[in-house]
Amino acid sequence: MIDLNADLGESFGIYTMGNDACMMPHITSANIACGFHAGDPLVMQQTVELALKYGVAVGAHPGYPDLQGFGRRQMRFSSEEIMAMILYQAGALKAFLQACGGKLQHLKPHGALYNEAAVDEPLAMAVAKATALLGTDVILVGPPNSALSRAADRCQTPYAREIFADRAYEDDGRLVERRKEGALIHDVGLCIQRMLSMINGQPIESINGHALHLSGETICLHGDHPQAIAFAAALKKAIQESQTPLVPLEKLLFKQQQPPVL
Amino acid sequence: MIDLNADLGESFGIYTMGNDACMMPHITSANIACGFHAGDPLVMQQTVELALKYGVAVGAHPGYPDLQGFGRRQMRFSSEEIMAMILYQAGALKAFLQACGGKLQHLKPHGALYNEAAVDEPLAMAVAKATALLGTDVILVGPPNSALSRAADRCQTPYAREIFADRAYEDDGRLVERRKEGALIHDVGLCIQRMLSMINGQPIESINGHALHLSGETICLHGDHPQAIAFAAALKKAIQESQTPLVPLEKLLFKQQQPPVL
Amino acid sequence: MIDLNADLGESFGIYTMGNDACMMPHITSANIACGFHAGDPLVMQQTVELALKYGVAVGAHPGYPDLQGFGRRQMRFSSEEIMAMILYQAGALKAFLQACGGKLQHLKPHGALYNEAAVDEPLAMAVAKATALLGTDVILVGPPNSALSRAADRCQTPYAREIFADRAYEDDGRLVERRKEGALIHDVGLCIQRMLSMINGQPIESINGHALHLSGETICLHGDHPQAIAFAAALKKAIQESQTPLVPLEKLLFKQQQPPVL
Amino acid sequence: MIDLNADLGESFGIYTMGNDACMMPHITSANIACGFHAGDPLVMQQTVELALKYGVAVGAHPGYPDLQGFGRRQMRFSSEEIMAMILYQAGALKAFLQACGGKLQHLKPHGALYNEAAVDEPLAMAVAKATALLGTDVILVGPPNSALSRAADRCQTPYAREIFADRAYEDDGRLVERRKEGALIHDVGLCIQRMLSMINGQPIESINGHALHLSGETICLHGDHPQAIAFAAALKKAIQESQTPLVPLEKLLFKQQQPPVL
Repeated sequence: MIDLNADLGESFGIYTMGNDACMMPHITSANIACGFHAGDPLVMQQTVELALKYGVAVGAHPGYPDLQGFGRRQMRFSSEEIMAMILYQAGALKAFLQACGGKLQHLKPHGALYNEAAVDEPLAMAVAKATALLGTDVILVGPPNSALSRAADRCQTPYAREIFADRAYEDDGRLVERRKEGALIHDVGLCIQRMLSMINGQPIESINGHALHLSGETICLHGDHPQAIAFAAALKKAIQESQTPLVPLEKLLFKQQQPPVL
Repeated sequence: MIDLNADLGESFGIYTMGNDACMMPHITSANIACGFHAGDPLVMQQTVELALKYGVAVGAHPGYPDLQGFGRRQMRFSSEEIMAMILYQAGALKAFLQACGGKLQHLKPHGALYNEAAVDEPLAMAVAKATALLGTDVILVGPPNSALSRAADRCQTPYAREIFADRAYEDDGRLVERRKEGALIHDVGLCIQRMLSMINGQPIESINGHALHLSGETICLHGDHPQAIAFAAALKKAIQESQTPLVPLEKLLFKQQQPPVL
Repeated sequence: MIDLNADLGESFGIYTMGNDACMMPHITSANIACGFHAGDPLVMQQTVELALKYGVAVGAHPGYPDLQGFGRRQMRFSSEEIMAMILYQAGALKAFLQACGGKLQHLKPHGALYNEAAVDEPLAMAVAKATALLGTDVILVGPPNSALSRAADRCQTPYAREIFADRAYEDDGRLVERRKEGALIHDVGLCIQRMLSMINGQPIESINGHALHLSGETICLHGDHPQAIAFAAALKKAIQESQTPLVPLEKLLFKQQQPPVL
Repeated sequence: MIDLNADLGESFGIYTMGNDACMMPHITSANIACGFHAGDPLVMQQTVELALKYGVAVGAHPGYPDLQGFGRRQMRFSSEEIMAMILYQAGALKAFLQACGGKLQHLKPHGALYNEAAVDEPLAMAVAKATALLGTDVILVGPPNSALSRAADRCQTPYAREIFADRAYEDDGRLVERRKEGALIHDVGLCIQRMLSMINGQPIESINGHALHLSGETICLHGDHPQAIAFAAALKKAIQESQTPLVPLEKLLFKQQQPPVL
């Protein structure tokens, strides 16, 4: 079983980003921006409604309070500030979910918060603790074998490992930085092949050509480039043809017999 | 029975406003700013913790997204935007309440949003609808005989009428505008006398000297002037001496036999 | 002689708006957003550099501090606040001009500030006074026969009347509100015909079919819709074919013999 | 000769910070916040007017775009962003100076921008270059023997070394971090003694008791604590009694015979 997630609800006021309505049919979980690095209250509400309409599970996608930098700039906060910031953003999203009859499935930190929480133990603990405070069944999404996954373990927060079909990996399993040559994989066929390997427990090639075993519960699809929709459709089709059930994280992690409550 | 409320949690970053810790012992309900016109995530969390410590019931105090104007400037929004803005802010506050084991008792709009919703029917409906979406037991707080009270009626949202001990009223029961001569009543003795009259169903004098019958469930105490604490203490003492039970809105409106769940 | 202006520099962070590089060849004056309703420091700098490269004169395009509403929402400020807000934004733009060896030609208020200053005398006076404080040769751009044009007169601020080729007008010369049927004219041929009539002192038809005499020094081109570039190119071509000299406002108003200093 | 500077104009909307009117009589140069980490357009205008009234020279005090963190949080920007951010903020301040007939004397980076530019060469170069673009006579203020002073040298930007009377220093001349024991010196007499030593070219004691020679052109007074005014008055009095002329940086650095143009 595998989940397909995408970052959505990133428009702000009259500024539009991505094409959420076209991505929804291809994913099982949506990470919705919460107004700090992207999104605004109306965009959040509309994105929640869209996700529920398509039966897509909803997660909070909190980020640093830096709209101009899209949450990608490093910033330094205390653990208390990080926890409060995450509770604030996820709480705001929950109000829209509650108003529409939905529930919060997961939380995935955004941009610099994601990258730094992957390697910074105190920051990772703050993120995991805040997630736990949102509900014991709220799933934290982040990289495999990271400070974040270890923090989730310590907080007994359910954790889903996110893997990327279109990003290259270093020998140790970290993502190759975007600015490095070869960081992004543009060939759809190769992406599909790597994705199926990861799903089926087979190794992929690291950027240095070594065999790398990576596994996870959810694959991230990017919604913000021109071929995003075609790419998402192709990956979804390949998963379906491989007989791998495509289910939201909730169902995957909690092995419920009944269909997930969306 | 009467409730005493105050607007708290209005600090922002290193900027402090009021003295929340000193006000808490004198009130039964706290309206906590939600980060748009005042407050920030950490201030919200600390104010929620403080309220719960003192057994004070908590309400959301949403405002326009205008920190520089403290939410006192008129702004024009669509009804959809107003609803989304209120859900966002109140949802954020609920996350802190949930994390601390508290619940949302009420919602009181702030500043220009309060003043305009008192007279603008579509705006009032948007506020009442958003409040209803937050929970059927969330109490909307606003002026008596206003567009807001009528909207609450139509939405079947519980409503608490707010009255002021230290503000003058026009003949028709509207507050005298702040900038007008005599709008604010500075004499504590006179404030107490007017407050007790309103509590006991007796008329007060309008600014033009006419008898005015005003009643309500909650009295607003201001926390942002130098004598605020002494003033609050004096009003609370006068209420207690008059044998009027001082209870949070929840208990007052829902006539629960058991103590309010804070 | 006529000037062609467009609102540019409206991108923000990773959010892009319009296509400034494609508009520049078709205009003589650029109104550059100043970071309150749109634009950010880096976008401002790049837009100034682009304008200077194309020999396009630069004006400040200040707006309300409301990025989410793109400065289109009504807000209420005191005259002092309006003046300070305009000085702040235009001053910021001047720093980029100074750094690049350019100068500030004009100031055109944006969105709700433009619309309200057209009819609100105290607001118009605040805008005109702020413009005068920026330099006695800074040209204020606004609608003909408006509170703004009268305020400029009283402040002895040079004023350029802006007319629209693609907007319908009421019988009294005010723009038809955008939401009204027929407010926007989509037929390029008709826009060109109306524009040439206004340039040549001939009447156009109001939305109710009456003859309306409107004249001005600058025509606004919109950069934010799909056909914006083709539309701008067609209008520019029609002006050139009609032998009307296309010059920046500065040259047009101050009748300098020497080429405008850009 | 020595200059006394203070960070002023740090209020925002209804939030007040410090007591600018009481500090003005005690200083010769004011660093005015520019709206990113503190200050707003109206506060800036009023602070500029106040400074000019007291004959105090004015400098820009730009910071990171982080009002909630008061510009004290580390953030990562590209050099281009830093330069654009500084030009934007200083340009905004210059508009108020121009409107009041004043001129920009200096620029002092704020908070985290100051601290990081003291040690980060590329960041320091961006700050120095931006200062140079504001005018070849604009003085950059920063710590002695720092990346910032070296960058100013390379850009041929006039530089004023800032020293602190109430802060402890490490053996190598860096400020002891605020959170460390002994970082702040509370005894006024000791502050005065250290200040006079630095002015007169005599060593002070580092936090470890070693002799440390530090000299500078300007001494920073803090305006944001309860004894700020009394402290400022005491230091000013001590300087006057020591016969050291108290002059704005401009006069000190450029050795003009005529009185400084304020």
